[in-house]
Amino acid sequence: MLITLSTDFGISSPYVASMKGVLLGINADARIVDLSHSLPPQKLRHAAYFLAQAVPYFPAGTLHICVVDPGVGSRRALLYVEAGTQRFLAPDNGVLTEVLKVLGGVKLARELTETKFWRSAISSTFHGRDILAPVAAHLSLGVAPTELGPVVADFVRLETPAPRQGANWLEGEVTFVDDFGNLITNFPTTILPEAFRVSVAGQVILRFVRTYAEAQPGELVTLISSDGHLEIALVNGNAAEHLRAGSGTVVMVTSAT
Amino acid sequence: MLITLSTDFGISSPYVASMKGVLLGINADARIVDLSHSLPPQKLRHAAYFLAQAVPYFPAGTLHICVVDPGVGSRRALLYVEAGTQRFLAPDNGVLTEVLKVLGGVKLARELTETKFWRSAISSTFHGRDILAPVAAHLSLGVAPTELGPVVADFVRLETPAPRQGANWLEGEVTFVDDFGNLITNFPTTILPEAFRVSVAGQVILRFVRTYAEAQPGELVTLISSDGHLEIALVNGNAAEHLRAGSGTVVMVTSAT
Amino acid sequence: MLITLSTDFGISSPYVASMKGVLLGINADARIVDLSHSLPPQKLRHAAYFLAQAVPYFPAGTLHICVVDPGVGSRRALLYVEAGTQRFLAPDNGVLTEVLKVLGGVKLARELTETKFWRSAISSTFHGRDILAPVAAHLSLGVAPTELGPVVADFVRLETPAPRQGANWLEGEVTFVDDFGNLITNFPTTILPEAFRVSVAGQVILRFVRTYAEAQPGELVTLISSDGHLEIALVNGNAAEHLRAGSGTVVMVTSAT
Repeated sequence: MLITLSTDFGISSPYVASMKGVLLGINADARIVDLSHSLPPQKLRHAAYFLAQAVPYFPAGTLHICVVDPGVGSRRALLYVEAGTQRFLAPDNGVLTEVLKVLGGVKLARELTETKFWRSAISSTFHGRDILAPVAAHLSLGVAPTELGPVVADFVRLETPAPRQGANWLEGEVTFVDDFGNLITNFPTTILPEAFRVSVAGQVILRFVRTYAEAQPGELVTLISSDGHLEIALVNGNAAEHLRAGSGTVVMVTSAT
Repeated sequence: MLITLSTDFGISSPYVASMKGVLLGINADARIVDLSHSLPPQKLRHAAYFLAQAVPYFPAGTLHICVVDPGVGSRRALLYVEAGTQRFLAPDNGVLTEVLKVLGGVKLARELTETKFWRSAISSTFHGRDILAPVAAHLSLGVAPTELGPVVADFVRLETPAPRQGANWLEGEVTFVDDFGNLITNFPTTILPEAFRVSVAGQVILRFVRTYAEAQPGELVTLISSDGHLEIALVNGNAAEHLRAGSGTVVMVTSAT
Repeated sequence: MLITLSTDFGISSPYVASMKGVLLGINADARIVDLSHSLPPQKLRHAAYFLAQAVPYFPAGTLHICVVDPGVGSRRALLYVEAGTQRFLAPDNGVLTEVLKVLGGVKLARELTETKFWRSAISSTFHGRDILAPVAAHLSLGVAPTELGPVVADFVRLETPAPRQGANWLEGEVTFVDDFGNLITNFPTTILPEAFRVSVAGQVILRFVRTYAEAQPGELVTLISSDGHLEIALVNGNAAEHLRAGSGTVVMVTSAT
């Protein structure tokens, strides 16, 4: 069984290594796949977008451990979830909101309460190491999800901001900034007018291209992102830095016909 | 056999990739686990703490390659070490100090001198690629540690700063800063008074919590770190940046009863 | 079959994870090795140097996927290339220039045109996920390279700057800056005079050492890099930051006899 890891632990701390150690210490044959350990700290929306983009491609039965967990040690539950052909271990804080939509909703959800699958000593600040990693290892050894704890019917969802729509305008926002500095917005291509201009951070962008290479280096353009949304890019540059824009920045689309 | 890699090589240089290539070039079936390649350059204390936190969880027989090696090419020895159920390849510069304490001391140590397990050309600045990676690969193929070189009786240890203790005060320091900016100190929880205040970088912290979520975002708190020491945190923020504190910053604990 | 990944996607975006998902979704047994996902965005020279340093060590038959692809979606071809014992999937933009030299030239090159090995929906900005990952997975399942598309005879090469040579001087440049801030130049050791001084960024460096440890922390030195070129280093520090030098910075070597 493949087990993926997505965390906000950072890459110079021992937390990722500790989780791998615990996991492999229980099942040395577990196959671990790193997705990211540089998700921005405590940013649930970023993590939710990230999972929705990547998880659906994995083979059936893959178990995805997601640790972006500002509420660690508090009363928030830890969940085992099945959706589509994928499986998850994550805190109940909304981090799975977007990926569950893509996968068509939840088939099975359990709260992790059965301590016999946990480490014997549980810290109050590192449940990734003390609970999620050992539970994942036990699942990979054949423990049935039904043994992990009781059924959960309801869980936390993040609100997803939808674009507002007027006569000849749309108002939306940047939902994700990638490492290139490209700004992904919440406008699905289906709602865009045939010809349009985009206003963002005090700039107006008229040029809509199919690929980055159609425009000159340094040019601000819009295009269709690889996930089918309106994207704002600075060719061979960093649009987020150039525009001082980020997640939540307002984006206006106005019809230009 | 699992082989872990912990280095300060950084993530955009070809050094990690070269080591993986050499290792897999000799044993294509070797199972490599990345622990970190962003250990701060030449910071032995950071690496020593890192290894002590993560290594003990790994399955028996795991081989840990650690390359933080400011003395590369000089007379410092390269070591093969067994401690507890774990095995190491590392320079003799103290980087194993903390993990060897946790594992209960050294069972076997050899100096790497047998060149037949090395690459044929040895650079003077990259022994990770030219010596450690091929030796690890040969070990994974069944070469006996006794073949690597002579027994070593003594090696370099880092001094570990211990807190100083007065009538109603303790003076210690920050020993590790994680990627969240949390400050881990050298006060084990066992020596803390029942009620206390913490002074660090000109600020006094009164609030002691069990979990980050007990306090408000932006609040400075102390709590017990996941490794059982006093930790200073800024809830949902970066305490190291906020306090301009780092490894070595003095921390005072005074009894508040 | 081993499949390595080298990209400029960055470590907090979902692009690497998507590629791994697609790859493992087609062949769940594929063995993926991360080389780097922090190659500087769109910097073909950096990536070309990186591949040349690392790839030749890998076992015969390893497939290297390289995605630094500023021309994604344009008319640039995507290539399957065999050279030495190694195999590649990469855009035809020169990123393989240096590694092909090291491996002794191209044995076989095909343009990827056969869409049956691609994802069914092809975005115009993410061919790594939509074309390269599925093609790699199919190759790992035994698809013959001849099925991927037609033979390619000619492809894009980067120009490699060679040092200019005068009576008692050499003029070259920094070709690579590693994560330590060490500056690797384009002077192979074979062309260096017996005694020399180095001028770079307004500083003259007289000290030539065999290892970093020969000099004092904070001292600027030159030495032989692990790839056999003249290297400029600040002992236990970052020469690139100290000198404000980078890839392309002019370096003069003058005979000091």
